[in-house]
Amino acid sequence: MKHIVVHEVGPRDGLQMERQVVPIDTREDWVRRVMDSGVDIVQVGSFVHPVKVPQMADTDELIKRLVHDKPSGTVIAGLALNERGLDRGMECGVEMFCLGASASETHSMKNTGMASMEATQRIAASGKLALEAGKKVQVSVQSAFGCGFEGPIAEERVLEMARAYAEAGLYNISLADTAGHAHPEQVERLFGAVLALDSNIECTCHFHNTYGLGMANIFAALRAGVTSFETSFAGLGGCPFTKVAAGNVATEDFVNALQLQGVREDIRLEGLIGVANDVAGFFEREMPGCVYKTGTIKRKESA
Amino acid sequence: MKHIVVHEVGPRDGLQMERQVVPIDTREDWVRRVMDSGVDIVQVGSFVHPVKVPQMADTDELIKRLVHDKPSGTVIAGLALNERGLDRGMECGVEMFCLGASASETHSMKNTGMASMEATQRIAASGKLALEAGKKVQVSVQSAFGCGFEGPIAEERVLEMARAYAEAGLYNISLADTAGHAHPEQVERLFGAVLALDSNIECTCHFHNTYGLGMANIFAALRAGVTSFETSFAGLGGCPFTKVAAGNVATEDFVNALQLQGVREDIRLEGLIGVANDVAGFFEREMPGCVYKTGTIKRKESA
Repeated sequence: MKHIVVHEVGPRDGLQMERQVVPIDTREDWVRRVMDSGVDIVQVGSFVHPVKVPQMADTDELIKRLVHDKPSGTVIAGLALNERGLDRGMECGVEMFCLGASASETHSMKNTGMASMEATQRIAASGKLALEAGKKVQVSVQSAFGCGFEGPIAEERVLEMARAYAEAGLYNISLADTAGHAHPEQVERLFGAVLALDSNIECTCHFHNTYGLGMANIFAALRAGVTSFETSFAGLGGCPFTKVAAGNVATEDFVNALQLQGVREDIRLEGLIGVANDVAGFFEREMPGCVYKTGTIKRKESA
Repeated sequence: MKHIVVHEVGPRDGLQMERQVVPIDTREDWVRRVMDSGVDIVQVGSFVHPVKVPQMADTDELIKRLVHDKPSGTVIAGLALNERGLDRGMECGVEMFCLGASASETHSMKNTGMASMEATQRIAASGKLALEAGKKVQVSVQSAFGCGFEGPIAEERVLEMARAYAEAGLYNISLADTAGHAHPEQVERLFGAVLALDSNIECTCHFHNTYGLGMANIFAALRAGVTSFETSFAGLGGCPFTKVAAGNVATEDFVNALQLQGVREDIRLEGLIGVANDVAGFFEREMPGCVYKTGTIKRKESA
């Protein structure tokens, strides 16, 4: 198996949807412990308007605290939606930019006021600038597997966006299942097609567990040759204002699954379980993750 | 893809662990609606001692109500642990016997007072009797993927039990992940090995979601050629006396996943979702299933 990269998005995708704002010191503590557990990338926050998303208001400050005092193996990432976000990320010294556009016209218009391919070109240009500034860049196709507004998304649209990214020299491409519509067969087919576009491409995946298929989709992505996986501590994520449960796959559940198969045994699972417990404690509710509740399997020598 | 069989175990594996006994009329209503939705097999209950498992006390009566008045496409199954259970099943007219032994010596001793292979031979003999009486029979290997008491289980032990079943003419073989230890790689390998033993063998799987891998394991089993799937309405299952969440994969989540891939579109998912909602309502708590909470994906013509 190729080297598997674990990308923690809890501090961004998890916390941005929570009614309750988590104090910066608590977030710093959680992020540091995730890094100390040996996770490869931590998406610390997003550079969005502080009035629109108050949960992410002090992302710049948090990144400044972290970038000069962190394990050398971990990359500090931040999500930027536009040129202003890019500037903020440059200023606070983020190491990796996560950028993206939606494959759904409706989703794209609602989020950016731009059509899907126009937004893609804008993101590709931003990504190119970031690369030239020496940053790592991950570009994503949001709503790649279906859209809550539009339903199915044409696979050709996803491929068109991936081609535009690759042509701009942006080879780290993430497909995000924003609405949770993906199913394993589709996941394997679509990642296979994106990876076949250009041998330089490396794929990242991001699944929500809306319909119970998050982990099954992760294993389908693994089969297709995806090497980087976005997951969230305790399975946090989704919108607290609806009844739809739509968290991400839990980081500690994913790492546990990898380790059952003998992969990434260097990651300290107990550290991740500790963070997940604290996240659940902070929000005072049961989280979707399993392993932080059950503990790991007690291993004995094989019978 | 081969024909996929859906085997509902909620009325047995789901309800047997609940503190609250569900009245027979309610269980009859749930089972009838599951059958009317087009599920292939319903495991209505178990023939166990009524003092030991009061939740299953009137399994015989419930089966009598159902067997002569049910959709022709659905098979009424019941779980028997020993010869006495077999007699009770014969008497009430059950159509399919589910029988099993554990691959874990500790689990086997605790459950039956017998060593694993002794229990297997007993079960094989019972299964042969049931076959000769014109019944359908499914024989299982419990704790096939690991044991809460013992840890890892030798794959050779599982194969030895499967061979004993096949030699007795019992070709419908289920591997049950009683403790939830299974992971996808192991699932694909072990089912592949069992199916390779004899071309007459057809495999059934039964996964608990203890560590978040239930659905991923189901898809691994599908890949390996497993054709029959035990799932539970609303994802019910597991023990309410521990903190470990260990439900089965939810039937409605599995059927939704199949239908996303164009399989078993004859099953009326809305009917299953209705039952899952009523089960959650009866127990007055949120169940592990996803689709009964989120609803199905609104489909539009493909873009």
